[in-house]
Amino acid sequence: MSQAARPGRPGRRGGTSESRQDILTAARVAFSTHGFGGASVRSIAREAGVDQSLVHHFFGTKEQLLLAAVAFPVDPALALPPLLAGDRATLGERLAAYYVGVLEAPASRAPAIALLQAASTNEQAAALLRTFISEQVIGRLVAALDVPDAPVRATLVGSQLVGMAMVRYVVRVEPLASMPADGVVAAVAPTLQRYLTGALVLPD
Amino acid sequence: MSQAARPGRPGRRGGTSESRQDILTAARVAFSTHGFGGASVRSIAREAGVDQSLVHHFFGTKEQLLLAAVAFPVDPALALPPLLAGDRATLGERLAAYYVGVLEAPASRAPAIALLQAASTNEQAAALLRTFISEQVIGRLVAALDVPDAPVRATLVGSQLVGMAMVRYVVRVEPLASMPADGVVAAVAPTLQRYLTGALVLPD
Repeated sequence: MSQAARPGRPGRRGGTSESRQDILTAARVAFSTHGFGGASVRSIAREAGVDQSLVHHFFGTKEQLLLAAVAFPVDPALALPPLLAGDRATLGERLAAYYVGVLEAPASRAPAIALLQAASTNEQAAALLRTFISEQVIGRLVAALDVPDAPVRATLVGSQLVGMAMVRYVVRVEPLASMPADGVVAAVAPTLQRYLTGALVLPD
Repeated sequence: MSQAARPGRPGRRGGTSESRQDILTAARVAFSTHGFGGASVRSIAREAGVDQSLVHHFFGTKEQLLLAAVAFPVDPALALPPLLAGDRATLGERLAAYYVGVLEAPASRAPAIALLQAASTNEQAAALLRTFISEQVIGRLVAALDVPDAPVRATLVGSQLVGMAMVRYVVRVEPLASMPADGVVAAVAPTLQRYLTGALVLPD
């Protein structure tokens, strides 16, 4: 930004990375304002001042553009199908183990925490995350789980997973912060399992 | 701050509220740096440039000063004993109902969310909250619950409660965000009950 504003420097510096950034900014506005269905790659490209083909060139599909815009540390399109395909009775354990694994790995922990922090303090980031979770996470769980109230179940799972990240990795409250990872998985897996497939008494 | 810095205004303006603020600032530094046991009212008063008696006059006990420093929306010293005193088999439900009640009331929801946001993005606020939770929440639960691994259990309860606040009230993911409050209580109560009194298989 400050370099681009320097007088005497002709043209744009780092045009490719600037276009990429402009597309991400436009995508964040569009997805957080209009949701996934309401945002179009065409209007995002127009807003960013680039050709639509460049959006696809940089980011691939609209789903992949959303993933990049949210800066989600893993791609649910790749991660969820194998988790959901296994034995239904141990889904809570697989989900807990996968999630804790993502947060134990420094390379994915940092972006996951940054995303949580942004979504908890910035309304645009929260709206973007809501859009992403509805489209890319809840939708997949609902499609895979043949249970009543699947969307509520998915968000209950999310509440335990988000809270685990907050208490263990962000605020780092002991003894949970120093508990071995397999202990965390063992402790929360039954919670996830009950939310996913157990009896839930929900008000009408 | 800007008013106090105005030139030509003799002396301190609002000396009482400034002293109060100076004490809170000194307390936040002391509690987040040294923990509850390591911080003393005497040194906090010295750091704030006031007499120790003024700290007690404004805030009462050291516990109450910590409560004010954290800006915790409820006082666990008042809230927890009646919750913990009832039937152990329904403790999860009472805790869930109390917590959801605090977050449903606008007057306590705003400070609770502000505290979560601060602790998730600011290391001093996180350290202050860790100190507070260890001293004022976990300590009380450990004393009241006659179960093995009570501190781990208390932080697992915290993980579900914090995550519920994040998903329902901060990021506001649907359908959990619009679910009736009694539905939320019914859904998470068994989770809290299991963490508090159920079988937990923890690694050695």
